[in-house]
Amino acid sequence: MDKIKVAIAGLGRIGKIHLKNLCRNFSEIEVIATMDVAESSKAIVEEFNVPLFTQNFDDLLAISKLDAVVICSPTDTHADYVVKAARAGKHIFCEKPLDLSLERVQEVLNIVEACGVKLMLGFNRRFDPEFKKIRQLIVNDAVGDPQIIKITSRDPGPPPIEYVKVSGGMFLDMAIHDFDMARYISGKQVKEVFAKGTVMVDPEIGKAGDIDTAIITLTFDDGSMAVIDNCRQAVYGYDQRLEVFGSKGMVQAENNFPNNHKLYTEKGVSGDLPLHFFLERYDASYNQEVREFVDALVNNEDIPVSGDDGLLSMAIALAAKKSVEENRPVKINEIL
Amino acid sequence: MDKIKVAIAGLGRIGKIHLKNLCRNFSEIEVIATMDVAESSKAIVEEFNVPLFTQNFDDLLAISKLDAVVICSPTDTHADYVVKAARAGKHIFCEKPLDLSLERVQEVLNIVEACGVKLMLGFNRRFDPEFKKIRQLIVNDAVGDPQIIKITSRDPGPPPIEYVKVSGGMFLDMAIHDFDMARYISGKQVKEVFAKGTVMVDPEIGKAGDIDTAIITLTFDDGSMAVIDNCRQAVYGYDQRLEVFGSKGMVQAENNFPNNHKLYTEKGVSGDLPLHFFLERYDASYNQEVREFVDALVNNEDIPVSGDDGLLSMAIALAAKKSVEENRPVKINEIL
Amino acid sequence: MDKIKVAIAGLGRIGKIHLKNLCRNFSEIEVIATMDVAESSKAIVEEFNVPLFTQNFDDLLAISKLDAVVICSPTDTHADYVVKAARAGKHIFCEKPLDLSLERVQEVLNIVEACGVKLMLGFNRRFDPEFKKIRQLIVNDAVGDPQIIKITSRDPGPPPIEYVKVSGGMFLDMAIHDFDMARYISGKQVKEVFAKGTVMVDPEIGKAGDIDTAIITLTFDDGSMAVIDNCRQAVYGYDQRLEVFGSKGMVQAENNFPNNHKLYTEKGVSGDLPLHFFLERYDASYNQEVREFVDALVNNEDIPVSGDDGLLSMAIALAAKKSVEENRPVKINEIL
Amino acid sequence: MDKIKVAIAGLGRIGKIHLKNLCRNFSEIEVIATMDVAESSKAIVEEFNVPLFTQNFDDLLAISKLDAVVICSPTDTHADYVVKAARAGKHIFCEKPLDLSLERVQEVLNIVEACGVKLMLGFNRRFDPEFKKIRQLIVNDAVGDPQIIKITSRDPGPPPIEYVKVSGGMFLDMAIHDFDMARYISGKQVKEVFAKGTVMVDPEIGKAGDIDTAIITLTFDDGSMAVIDNCRQAVYGYDQRLEVFGSKGMVQAENNFPNNHKLYTEKGVSGDLPLHFFLERYDASYNQEVREFVDALVNNEDIPVSGDDGLLSMAIALAAKKSVEENRPVKINEIL
Repeated sequence: MDKIKVAIAGLGRIGKIHLKNLCRNFSEIEVIATMDVAESSKAIVEEFNVPLFTQNFDDLLAISKLDAVVICSPTDTHADYVVKAARAGKHIFCEKPLDLSLERVQEVLNIVEACGVKLMLGFNRRFDPEFKKIRQLIVNDAVGDPQIIKITSRDPGPPPIEYVKVSGGMFLDMAIHDFDMARYISGKQVKEVFAKGTVMVDPEIGKAGDIDTAIITLTFDDGSMAVIDNCRQAVYGYDQRLEVFGSKGMVQAENNFPNNHKLYTEKGVSGDLPLHFFLERYDASYNQEVREFVDALVNNEDIPVSGDDGLLSMAIALAAKKSVEENRPVKINEIL
Repeated sequence: MDKIKVAIAGLGRIGKIHLKNLCRNFSEIEVIATMDVAESSKAIVEEFNVPLFTQNFDDLLAISKLDAVVICSPTDTHADYVVKAARAGKHIFCEKPLDLSLERVQEVLNIVEACGVKLMLGFNRRFDPEFKKIRQLIVNDAVGDPQIIKITSRDPGPPPIEYVKVSGGMFLDMAIHDFDMARYISGKQVKEVFAKGTVMVDPEIGKAGDIDTAIITLTFDDGSMAVIDNCRQAVYGYDQRLEVFGSKGMVQAENNFPNNHKLYTEKGVSGDLPLHFFLERYDASYNQEVREFVDALVNNEDIPVSGDDGLLSMAIALAAKKSVEENRPVKINEIL
Repeated sequence: MDKIKVAIAGLGRIGKIHLKNLCRNFSEIEVIATMDVAESSKAIVEEFNVPLFTQNFDDLLAISKLDAVVICSPTDTHADYVVKAARAGKHIFCEKPLDLSLERVQEVLNIVEACGVKLMLGFNRRFDPEFKKIRQLIVNDAVGDPQIIKITSRDPGPPPIEYVKVSGGMFLDMAIHDFDMARYISGKQVKEVFAKGTVMVDPEIGKAGDIDTAIITLTFDDGSMAVIDNCRQAVYGYDQRLEVFGSKGMVQAENNFPNNHKLYTEKGVSGDLPLHFFLERYDASYNQEVREFVDALVNNEDIPVSGDDGLLSMAIALAAKKSVEENRPVKINEIL
Repeated sequence: MDKIKVAIAGLGRIGKIHLKNLCRNFSEIEVIATMDVAESSKAIVEEFNVPLFTQNFDDLLAISKLDAVVICSPTDTHADYVVKAARAGKHIFCEKPLDLSLERVQEVLNIVEACGVKLMLGFNRRFDPEFKKIRQLIVNDAVGDPQIIKITSRDPGPPPIEYVKVSGGMFLDMAIHDFDMARYISGKQVKEVFAKGTVMVDPEIGKAGDIDTAIITLTFDDGSMAVIDNCRQAVYGYDQRLEVFGSKGMVQAENNFPNNHKLYTEKGVSGDLPLHFFLERYDASYNQEVREFVDALVNNEDIPVSGDDGLLSMAIALAAKKSVEENRPVKINEIL
């Protein structure tokens, strides 16, 4: 079989991860081109022997044998790149979100659909072994019908204030992963959102019009619920936990740690902090999501995370934002 | 020093626990009388050599040397007994709640205050060693300012439907302990409540006008938050956990187990379920709460759980109920 | 039914525990006398309303209605008191060891048997809920045939050097509990012992002719093995763990902790140290062993820990001592 | 800098792991040749674009630009290949053991030394992140002077009986890793070994003259000790734990699990079994050991596991074997 020809656009933190995984761990893939607006990024690809580096996204699409593009460029380029790639008939893997405007996202998804290419969004946490295991236990009915889903998601520290200002806010930037997780784990649709948010980490975040601490209650269409707690700063590091309570039992995924040692001294029993941040914690998931994207291309199967998944999580985020602003529960159909 | 003379009214499950603890573990206490409407309860006290058993509460108050009464009778007698005891000049330990009517509670508290007797409410969980440890860590500033408090409180099974009907509802009957815990642990006042409730365990509970599953977000006066998840039925038993996330760290109290064994077999790693229900789980707390009540009497100090504590948790419960009914956040000052 | 009349001899640490348990938790027992050579011990019993206090052991046996004696006096009095009690026809609960001389123990057991009274030795750890659970799992064949038993037993600190000198050595004084545990858990007989001992905690212990750190390998009659590691000083407190590895699985009992909190801060994850020493760790076992002693008397059943159990564990201890001295494996039938 | 040119001899399970790691994760390495006696192994290297495949070890040494060989061929070829490589002036990474004869090992090491090449032995577990962390804590004096080291090492199932017959026995084949670990973790020399072994898993192993279950006590030169328990079959999977007890504390490394989920149902609390066997459990260590070998070549530094390390662990294994046979403690200087 011919190898699938892939190009990667954007060589920031996530782009580099995808580049490495695609070049090293996929014998059915050939990375034939990379693109980044910064010329300095050219150095990154050197060790991987990728034939082409360009600073212009259009150059990628001009490669006739190219099968798919992996888009890891800044958020404000996603929609344009996706539209161009779709129109060029290339399959697309794109980091979330597609865009900060729901209308633009809807428009892009319509174009993608019309072009008949596959589009997968990078909700990488679905591919984390811990959460996949939980999902599998639910599918196997080990916990019965999910009644309460609890997601803890706290970052080790806030992003730079300049980033906060253009991020779309904590719900669209950070909690959107948790909204996708609630949908993925439950297999249900969210119908209503109540969010309570506040500024406890840094007043500058408040001045930028955002919040840094929140509790969000999601109500699914069958009346069952999920609750998410977020904070931009947990001094002990990245806190990523999941619990599903159902009619037949309960299952928990704890944090992951760099090692499992326990030290007993006169002062107490201690151990190391959880894996520091998303690059360490979700390392395996970045490889696995691309693995499933590639498998879907190779076998011409459905993409595991569709554009609609992105759209719906975005709608939850917008509902959460509105809920905080208006201090009331907001129905998803007020947004979509 | 003379021993403090105590009488116990009500010899149900909790009454028997207090009887045993007071008779066996307190050298400074003398239980001189017990009361229960059922004559059959007389048998219970025999092994403890308590001189008097009566079926009439007034008989207790007629004992001039009596210092204090411990009221464990049914909820609908609490207010009357407390008022009578206060007017008779006896100190009072009363199981929660004082009454299901906020007005009546306020009225009773006014009388108690006017009579100058001490009144302690049986929010026993405050005296649980696990939660006391957490509170102590917060007081010692080990976690900094509490930003998010998470309480999981799930019963092993629902009470009989007849009990549900007169219970005042899940918030007043069950979650009220969690509301008190949120107040105790944070040391803050709740200003707003949003609760989302549903019926997932038993449709009969819904027909009785109650819910069996809920997620409640409490907002404290400084904007920090607590979130409580309740369910009337966890098939794996009593689930009582607490987590406090603050500016300097996070502390968790896990469930308590009857033993700590871990069994490894071909099928997996397994262990026993948590302690089954409140009598097992909070065994130590029942002794400790009476210990602190007695200490307050002996040393003429402030009671650790005041009538106002009961009133405020009740207000939160009523706000939660209203929040579910009207699907909106409810301010405490709408209730009080 | 008439209550069983019990006397307690020796009111040191363990004597006080038995006094309290017998007076408070056993409705079928009446403690009618206590004895201690120190007159000052009289104060201890006052709060329990025990009618008689004496400084002379013979006074106890002179009480005709007395059914049983609980002997908690110093080790060097055990043999004499047991012989006297047996000859007086009283059932006996005696703290271990019966004596430091194997011949004397054998002699005493012969007398006890001839007198037809019941004798139980205070190997309290058999009655610990954790270890009982493990034993029950083995009896239920949850781990198959035990192949390797691992016991960790470390004290928080060494006893005073004066005590070390008269203790009979670490194996007879401390490890004997672990030898009994190995026999109890496995249900097998030990046929050979290899022990390696050294002085790592305090050179004074070495000067007193004892060791403070040891690893002991026991071989059972079927070739399966147990390994015990002992140290007189674990700076983090009392370390009491058990593991059984068998043909169908493995089961572990971890240490017990005063609470289960976990604290996450910038520095790491931490929790409290294990329960400090035997009084805290084995609190429940002291009550339960007396419970089973009393039950055996009431129902005229076999005593759960016989004099032979004491004899055999003592033989293992003596074999271990000889093994260290001669640096070779020692067969039990070299001792017994 | 020029890349280091490496050849790999032997493409079995471990050979394939090294091939993959060297080709994919080391930019400073170029794998220029592979060798395996089976022609069918040629297929394995195809995806890695290694220029040369040969069935003859000598062909590798004929490559003048070759810097180092990685020897993963069967044990009985190790000594010959190492000698040839050393004489050809190539640096050597060789899987353990060098040979089953101590004399031959000593001879080989002398030749290696005379030839002035670097030789590293594949005691991969030293490079496991869990154990490295423990070692680092000891080096940092977090546990004080090690007094008791406990190693649990149990395989999920025995190897084929044909393998058992040529393996050199459980101590040389399996426990040798644990002997190296005891040396590595303690930083001390073993002076005496007592081992007790038996057959509990499969009588065929006994017929082949080997044992399948053992407890080994190692005495270090300062009198401190290590105890290792081994079994060829743990039905629950690979059991690899380490504990170090010292004058300042105790540190433990637990097993590693494929995920950390906990499932609560009516039946109890359960989770997955540990990682199944060495390929999964020690995955990271195989990469890291080669990483440190390469670093030592690049920087011309000392090799982290020397030939003497292999020799000394082998001597412990032979002492253990003799100890079982003669049922007595055996001094290392009886062997070396």
